[in-house]
Amino acid sequence: MTEEQLNLVRRLAAQLRVDSIRCSTQAGSGHPTSSLSAADLMAALLVGHLHYDWDQPHLAANDHLIFSKGHASPLLYSMFRAVGVVSEEELIDTYRQLGARLEGHPTPGLPWVDVATGSLGQGLPDAVGVCIAGKYLDRLPYHVWVLCGDSETAEGSMWEALDKASYYKLGNLTAIVDVNRLGQRGPTELEWDLDRYAARVSAFGARPLVIDGHDPVAIDQALSEARAGGDQPTVVLARTVKGKGVPEIEDQNGWHGKALPPDMADRAIAALGGRSDLKIATSNPEPGTSAIAPEPSATVTLPTWGVGEKVATRVAYGAAVAALAVRPEVVVLDGEVGNSTGAAEFQKVSPERYFEIFIAEQQLVAAAVGLSVRGYVAFATTFAAFFSRAYDFIRMAGISEVNIRLVGSHCGVEIGADGPSQMALEDLAALRAVHTSIVLYPADAPATAALVAEMADTAGIVYLRTTRGAYPVIYPPDEAFPVGGSKVHRAGAHDQVTLIGAGVTLHECLAAADELAGSGIAVRVIDAYSVKPIDRDTLVQACRVTDGRMIVVEDHYPEGGIGSAVLQALATASVPALQLAHLAVPGLPTSGTPAELLDAAGISARHIVDAARRLVEA
Amino acid sequence: MTEEQLNLVRRLAAQLRVDSIRCSTQAGSGHPTSSLSAADLMAALLVGHLHYDWDQPHLAANDHLIFSKGHASPLLYSMFRAVGVVSEEELIDTYRQLGARLEGHPTPGLPWVDVATGSLGQGLPDAVGVCIAGKYLDRLPYHVWVLCGDSETAEGSMWEALDKASYYKLGNLTAIVDVNRLGQRGPTELEWDLDRYAARVSAFGARPLVIDGHDPVAIDQALSEARAGGDQPTVVLARTVKGKGVPEIEDQNGWHGKALPPDMADRAIAALGGRSDLKIATSNPEPGTSAIAPEPSATVTLPTWGVGEKVATRVAYGAAVAALAVRPEVVVLDGEVGNSTGAAEFQKVSPERYFEIFIAEQQLVAAAVGLSVRGYVAFATTFAAFFSRAYDFIRMAGISEVNIRLVGSHCGVEIGADGPSQMALEDLAALRAVHTSIVLYPADAPATAALVAEMADTAGIVYLRTTRGAYPVIYPPDEAFPVGGSKVHRAGAHDQVTLIGAGVTLHECLAAADELAGSGIAVRVIDAYSVKPIDRDTLVQACRVTDGRMIVVEDHYPEGGIGSAVLQALATASVPALQLAHLAVPGLPTSGTPAELLDAAGISARHIVDAARRLVEA
Repeated sequence: MTEEQLNLVRRLAAQLRVDSIRCSTQAGSGHPTSSLSAADLMAALLVGHLHYDWDQPHLAANDHLIFSKGHASPLLYSMFRAVGVVSEEELIDTYRQLGARLEGHPTPGLPWVDVATGSLGQGLPDAVGVCIAGKYLDRLPYHVWVLCGDSETAEGSMWEALDKASYYKLGNLTAIVDVNRLGQRGPTELEWDLDRYAARVSAFGARPLVIDGHDPVAIDQALSEARAGGDQPTVVLARTVKGKGVPEIEDQNGWHGKALPPDMADRAIAALGGRSDLKIATSNPEPGTSAIAPEPSATVTLPTWGVGEKVATRVAYGAAVAALAVRPEVVVLDGEVGNSTGAAEFQKVSPERYFEIFIAEQQLVAAAVGLSVRGYVAFATTFAAFFSRAYDFIRMAGISEVNIRLVGSHCGVEIGADGPSQMALEDLAALRAVHTSIVLYPADAPATAALVAEMADTAGIVYLRTTRGAYPVIYPPDEAFPVGGSKVHRAGAHDQVTLIGAGVTLHECLAAADELAGSGIAVRVIDAYSVKPIDRDTLVQACRVTDGRMIVVEDHYPEGGIGSAVLQALATASVPALQLAHLAVPGLPTSGTPAELLDAAGISARHIVDAARRLVEA
Repeated sequence: MTEEQLNLVRRLAAQLRVDSIRCSTQAGSGHPTSSLSAADLMAALLVGHLHYDWDQPHLAANDHLIFSKGHASPLLYSMFRAVGVVSEEELIDTYRQLGARLEGHPTPGLPWVDVATGSLGQGLPDAVGVCIAGKYLDRLPYHVWVLCGDSETAEGSMWEALDKASYYKLGNLTAIVDVNRLGQRGPTELEWDLDRYAARVSAFGARPLVIDGHDPVAIDQALSEARAGGDQPTVVLARTVKGKGVPEIEDQNGWHGKALPPDMADRAIAALGGRSDLKIATSNPEPGTSAIAPEPSATVTLPTWGVGEKVATRVAYGAAVAALAVRPEVVVLDGEVGNSTGAAEFQKVSPERYFEIFIAEQQLVAAAVGLSVRGYVAFATTFAAFFSRAYDFIRMAGISEVNIRLVGSHCGVEIGADGPSQMALEDLAALRAVHTSIVLYPADAPATAALVAEMADTAGIVYLRTTRGAYPVIYPPDEAFPVGGSKVHRAGAHDQVTLIGAGVTLHECLAAADELAGSGIAVRVIDAYSVKPIDRDTLVQACRVTDGRMIVVEDHYPEGGIGSAVLQALATASVPALQLAHLAVPGLPTSGTPAELLDAAGISARHIVDAARRLVEA
């Protein structure tokens, strides 16, 4: 940087500090001190290193800037003002107000924000996904800059991220850690022990650059080195002072997450040189387009199976997602179980778009989020139970309103001998509750294949639950399975009971229906393959025909799953008083065979038959 | 070790290998190769280092052995046979069978197993909790040995654990990493690069000991050094060969999680010297009792508040948990937000039983699990939204059937300006679905205090949701709040509508009831402070009186929360056809004031009044 640029950095840093104080004091809340510590770092980034066309935030060639320490939003929004995309009025008058896009923590409601942050330790893992896109898919020289807090390095997810960043040689990633020594309630674990930070960073394969985070020359040099990083990710470890620029609270505990009172703010702003209106012209990115052009209308030839053939839906997933490989925007991520989940089928046909994340489910989901930022259709696959490891990431992906596909195999007691640690029995409840989520649970191979194809074009957090064991194909190859739909089997005008199943329990319901029909009890069976949204109209109609006699059967704990979805759908409809039997897994399963465990849990055909008889006789 | 002991180690290792093969081949599933690699390590541990009285598994002075790589259960159970607590018949004939205690992955259904494992990366964090108990509370010289897989070092939670182990100077912890180079689907990230493992371990403050994991002398020496560890945790990095002892599959990919076919098993067993019946007498622990004697009947004087006083339930939690400090078994864990959640109040009165876990929620919950293993009553506290980070740990704690207390503050849109990343809006759904969970959501300070006291003596995964803002005290100080109960306000024989709220929405319901009463509509209000179990009888009775007209109001997404609990309770009761209004947070909130956000979400008194009028007029 020239001396002139360095001077601009100093003046911009002062403005960012002033604006951070102004907007938070005006709002009466926020995190000014966490913004002040990083103002010099971000000023230097804007003036000399961020390549970004602010008029075209979705330009493929743009750098990315992610505030992993999302609570420093006053600083981020002050940067947006400095580059001219947010007005002074919006910054000062709307920050943290109802309905404003300048929220307490950043969300992609702002076009320059890739992902929602505010749950610490997520911005960096998300960035790893963007960097994978940049290096291996887009093949563009954009750089991904992540401002991290020091407190968040206590989150294991940060180390999952650095581990994968070095494994994938993501030289396009720079984490800038604002080591301001103070967390919310007091000193951080490592305080200003930069050497220990550096040792950890090195050990995880990234290049540490230790600097004074208030020295523009040092910052400039570090960011230059970082961008020229070659094959190694960089972590700039910047020693900073919390509250820097406001001497009366610098490095003082007790000022986290507090707006300065107006009088203190006025003094601080005056000492910082008062309000200013610098407008920064950042460098435009080098022109360039992604090496991958999405082909959403490419012809996908899904695999087919014959009715009656026994196929596991996890196998069908593998075959279907491999068929989707003709669409160059489709990417598959594995949590080191690709040979069990079916995901590895994709690797066989498209190894260059298959990324092994190993056993790090937080990073698995975060990589999908990052890839989604760049428009890729990422399927993240592991055992259904292990998405619980990434639940906060899934929750935040919902807040980001990104589009990701999660495929979880080995659900429920049906998995058999491995025991409860491997059985997803609360996944439907957890996933249904996530903002923008779609929850799918097909019973056979054609349904799975159709839904996998549909997932690629479905917005939101789309979760598919697949089954370990092989069960007969029920549906013909050309059957459609729209999200929000269902399939009705054996419907008649005089049905006495409605059976509702999905996945493995649909097969149990069909077997029960056979047996009941043999003893003169007509039942209809609903395949609720779309658990969320559930097919309310079909449920309401069935409830009326069978006079409220309904049996829901699910391989899941009783709370929050299919039973809950059915009850919620019927609760506000005009239907007869319910006579419900809800067959769900009542307690902790053990090992056993799938058939034994389904029976022990009370969700096998035999139990359904008994429940139906009781309802009819009641 | 003497030469005789070393020979015993070799013979025992052969027996452990033989038994691991036998039980898994008999079961037709399991992870023999992952057991074979660690057999020498565990043989040496049993013969020379584990201090354990097998007749008294709950003896305070016992060492602890945790298989973080729970899939190596054949090895663990073979060890149990070798020390004489599991018979050959039980091992060979019941492993992985329905209802057997020798499950696919270990659970505390076995008295020598502290915690359920099988979701990787959890045994070590759990062990950190046990070690905290040993060093700071029990003050006993027991040692905690953890067998870890190499694949699971990709989980960030492993690094959270080592970080806290070094922070708390847990020299009583030894992690033995079985570096067998192969994961499920292929090579691990670092394969046999022991130097990189060692650098990471060192950087995180633990002492790495790199050894050949098949050399009894080296193992013995490392375990001796580890036990004499002083103030530093030890990580034994043992280079091993997957499938060791069965040459035809040693170090071969494709043999993870597969039982040997019977013919191969026979060959292998013969080559290993055939079946044997060694009985190992491990050292007894040094006699000793915990420095802390629980006093569950100590008199706890809960804080009191006057009706009408405005108090946040998070503040009430802090005051109540501080009052519980008179019970020496009560411990509080903070996720670096103790000044916001109220937890720090406990620190003021009992700093020696207050542990700062910093921003590492997985470790936060795991520490509670580990403390529970030693009988401590641990309250883990953070923002409610951030327990989602530890959902897999909470799920596994349910499978462990341990007793932990989770207190989450700042739930729902009520938190205001910080925005959705800080708002727990899916926590009730997620927690309700966990095995053994209890979910509590008090509306005022006395209810909170009473429930906090009750939590200390309530088994299971007990979750308390507290509110950020201050609201009026409703209940007198002597009111009882049993788990599973509820409170009914304004009940009359001619009530037209039932309003059901909890936490902040109870206040909105009461305000709505006032307004409705003013316009001649009598409603009753139920405080569903016990969300799980919910007070079914009271709901059924109310539903009958108000002829099915019910309004559920919750500061949570619509799925899986209070509405779901109410529907589930009523679904199998004999009640009039429901006319339900379910007011819940319909979409993504923004920033705003609490009152604005409650109103924008449609869960404020005004919306309740409207909904009640519509129901009455319908």
